[in-house]
Amino acid sequence: MVGNGGRPISIALLGCGVVGSQVVRLLTEQADELAARVGAPLRLVGVAVRRPQRHPDVPADLLTTDAAGLVSRDDVDVVVELVGGIEPVRGLLLTALKAGKSVVSANKALLAEDGAALAAAADESGADLYYEASVAGAIPLLRPIQQSLAGDRIVRVAGIVNGTTNFILSAMASSGANYTEALEEAGRLGYAEADPTADVDGYDAASKAAILASLAFHTRVTADDVHREGIRDVSAADIAAAKALGCTVKLLAICEQVDGRVSARVHPAMIPRSHPLASVSGAYNAVFIEAAAAGQLMFYGQGAGGPQTASAVLGDLVAAARNRVIGGRGPRDTAHAALPVLSMGETHTRYHVALDVNDRAGVLAQVAGVFAEHGVSIATVRQEGRGEAGRDADDGAPGPKDATLVIVTHSASDAALAATVQALTGLDAVRGVAGVLRVEGLGRPVTDLGGGS
Amino acid sequence: MVGNGGRPISIALLGCGVVGSQVVRLLTEQADELAARVGAPLRLVGVAVRRPQRHPDVPADLLTTDAAGLVSRDDVDVVVELVGGIEPVRGLLLTALKAGKSVVSANKALLAEDGAALAAAADESGADLYYEASVAGAIPLLRPIQQSLAGDRIVRVAGIVNGTTNFILSAMASSGANYTEALEEAGRLGYAEADPTADVDGYDAASKAAILASLAFHTRVTADDVHREGIRDVSAADIAAAKALGCTVKLLAICEQVDGRVSARVHPAMIPRSHPLASVSGAYNAVFIEAAAAGQLMFYGQGAGGPQTASAVLGDLVAAARNRVIGGRGPRDTAHAALPVLSMGETHTRYHVALDVNDRAGVLAQVAGVFAEHGVSIATVRQEGRGEAGRDADDGAPGPKDATLVIVTHSASDAALAATVQALTGLDAVRGVAGVLRVEGLGRPVTDLGGGS
Repeated sequence: MVGNGGRPISIALLGCGVVGSQVVRLLTEQADELAARVGAPLRLVGVAVRRPQRHPDVPADLLTTDAAGLVSRDDVDVVVELVGGIEPVRGLLLTALKAGKSVVSANKALLAEDGAALAAAADESGADLYYEASVAGAIPLLRPIQQSLAGDRIVRVAGIVNGTTNFILSAMASSGANYTEALEEAGRLGYAEADPTADVDGYDAASKAAILASLAFHTRVTADDVHREGIRDVSAADIAAAKALGCTVKLLAICEQVDGRVSARVHPAMIPRSHPLASVSGAYNAVFIEAAAAGQLMFYGQGAGGPQTASAVLGDLVAAARNRVIGGRGPRDTAHAALPVLSMGETHTRYHVALDVNDRAGVLAQVAGVFAEHGVSIATVRQEGRGEAGRDADDGAPGPKDATLVIVTHSASDAALAATVQALTGLDAVRGVAGVLRVEGLGRPVTDLGGGS
Repeated sequence: MVGNGGRPISIALLGCGVVGSQVVRLLTEQADELAARVGAPLRLVGVAVRRPQRHPDVPADLLTTDAAGLVSRDDVDVVVELVGGIEPVRGLLLTALKAGKSVVSANKALLAEDGAALAAAADESGADLYYEASVAGAIPLLRPIQQSLAGDRIVRVAGIVNGTTNFILSAMASSGANYTEALEEAGRLGYAEADPTADVDGYDAASKAAILASLAFHTRVTADDVHREGIRDVSAADIAAAKALGCTVKLLAICEQVDGRVSARVHPAMIPRSHPLASVSGAYNAVFIEAAAAGQLMFYGQGAGGPQTASAVLGDLVAAARNRVIGGRGPRDTAHAALPVLSMGETHTRYHVALDVNDRAGVLAQVAGVFAEHGVSIATVRQEGRGEAGRDADDGAPGPKDATLVIVTHSASDAALAATVQALTGLDAVRGVAGVLRVEGLGRPVTDLGGGS
């Protein structure tokens, strides 16, 4: 490749919402600094929008509703895509990449669904494909994983990658609010959208998990490969139970490499309060990485917001533009591993199980027997007698008293754990399962579980 | 530039100590994965050592004591330098870069003293110069600053970048030990060297501050530009005073851009316990970055150790090797700003001052008057009466009682603060200055200062 001789780099912007308008602002305000870093001026040649309303930051003659026409212009060097969703964006970006135009995208859904096709198109034409802003907003994360850790073996990536759910769980933990109350507060403060499904049901985090697993393990993981559970069922009692165990509840995106296979999953989990991720509260994001040589790393910052996401987009844009100027290329998506993906049932985790039981002799033995039958080893068990008359005494005489058994298991397959819980509900002495949550040590010893409240 | 057609990339290693031997090990163990990421095999062609003793991980025929000869070999593509110190390394690396060989170095002292000459040599020949391992060991930090944040304006970098001093301060905070005891413990556990000067007097951190300031602000800052104070004078009383204010004491490397000028300094400081840096304990490192658009970011991990540092070296090596294969180039050191460096006296900070005073009417007014004379505004003041007879009563009669005044100032120039403290020692009513420490909010409100113990 050869450089472009220092001529201006032409940029087409698709989408001009919260992030796009910040990108336009920064391109203007920092024009001189960006030119110095790139080695040539950055020139915005068009902004594709759905409706040609006025955008205060964008000169009217740059606005167009013809995204396809803009992307196909011969003079465009880099396409910056901030539209989101799968179509029509996929077609537009494939067209751009095949024509040798570099692409900067914040589109987690598209990257998680069809990153392979985009990477292949980029690879074929020698164009760059960057998408730092698609995961954890402002936090530099994909570049460190792809480049800084390129000489290491990443074994686990575990992150708080969705600010809405972290805000809700943090609010539940600090105020004792239940899920519905905390969701309403998040909505009032602008941390939750009117339809919060993508966030609270874990779709957003699952897309990010797919992208992280693909880059960390040099393989292809799509959003469909990611086991996904949201936070709707996390109760105030779960949060209190976590606190009693020295833990806190977080919605985690966890990607692990286990014996040449990949586990990628999103679910709420208890983590020890001593873990660096535990103190990440509110709308902040953080991603914890373990690598064979580097050990434990954590990256922390704001995962959303216009200026924050624009910062990540501009970092990518500078890299793509600079490569145009000097005739270089960014790192390819080297998905050379093609690792199989573990089902959730095969994944090894730990469970916290709270059982409402009759407080009578032999109950613990029965319960422990069910765990043993399923090959699940119990780490700690604590019985909390509640001294209330049983609700199932239908003969008028006082029934056996209620108690709660709080059990934390050692690591076992998720299938064995789920089957154990299922079988427990069939025991006469078990009145109900009050709570089930996975427990993740994430590379730290879980020392204080069962340590009392 | 053109690629190399996929022929193996030849590597010369200078130094084979704790880090170098790990680099050799990882190059061997991960040969296939590294080749896949680079696009060509990595081939170690020679290892320069001071004494030709046996190195269990290195084939004997690769060992040489002739570093200059190794660096000058025509077939060497990348020189990895893990020797440290200024000479003879500077000459060797300049020779390599001028001959178009790329350089990967972990040499903070050299980069901090003469990074400009190395960068210029790299720029001229089109070679790469990477030194991620020189700051904060395994933590990906320089690449995020140089690349991910290339489209943003960094306003502050503040980090715990020396594990030895962080271990000592953490031990003092958790056990109440004094400095000497904590230093001895650090030595016993291998966290402090026999001669701990470079660590405890802040030289190591100052080199890292120079590198961080240079990259963050696109300018040139050398170690000599960095104001440097170590931790020898931090007392158990200082640590206790910090705790009483809701703070903790850390040795910080702080780089700020203020009105087009740069402040770079290393000194112990109180920071609020609610700050993300406050919970970084033991030998861990963490660096906190504030950027105009990205907001607050933090990077956390192990700052030293053989495998950890080797991980950073290999990340750089993969990047340099890959650029050889595809004919690309990494980011240049774009020191386009040439910002003047503020003296410490001009730098604005806050002070915590503990004064032993006579507990009699008018003392506070006198003390407050001295602050006012120097234009230093007091944020909080707390008087702790101790009820002891004064030690300066030399006439046999009971003297005035002792008290301690604890004062936290608002932000003022360091020169004004230092002059204030100097003037306070001249007051009759002031028996002595029990402690002076800077207080840094680091982008967080310091809300709980003076909130009692």
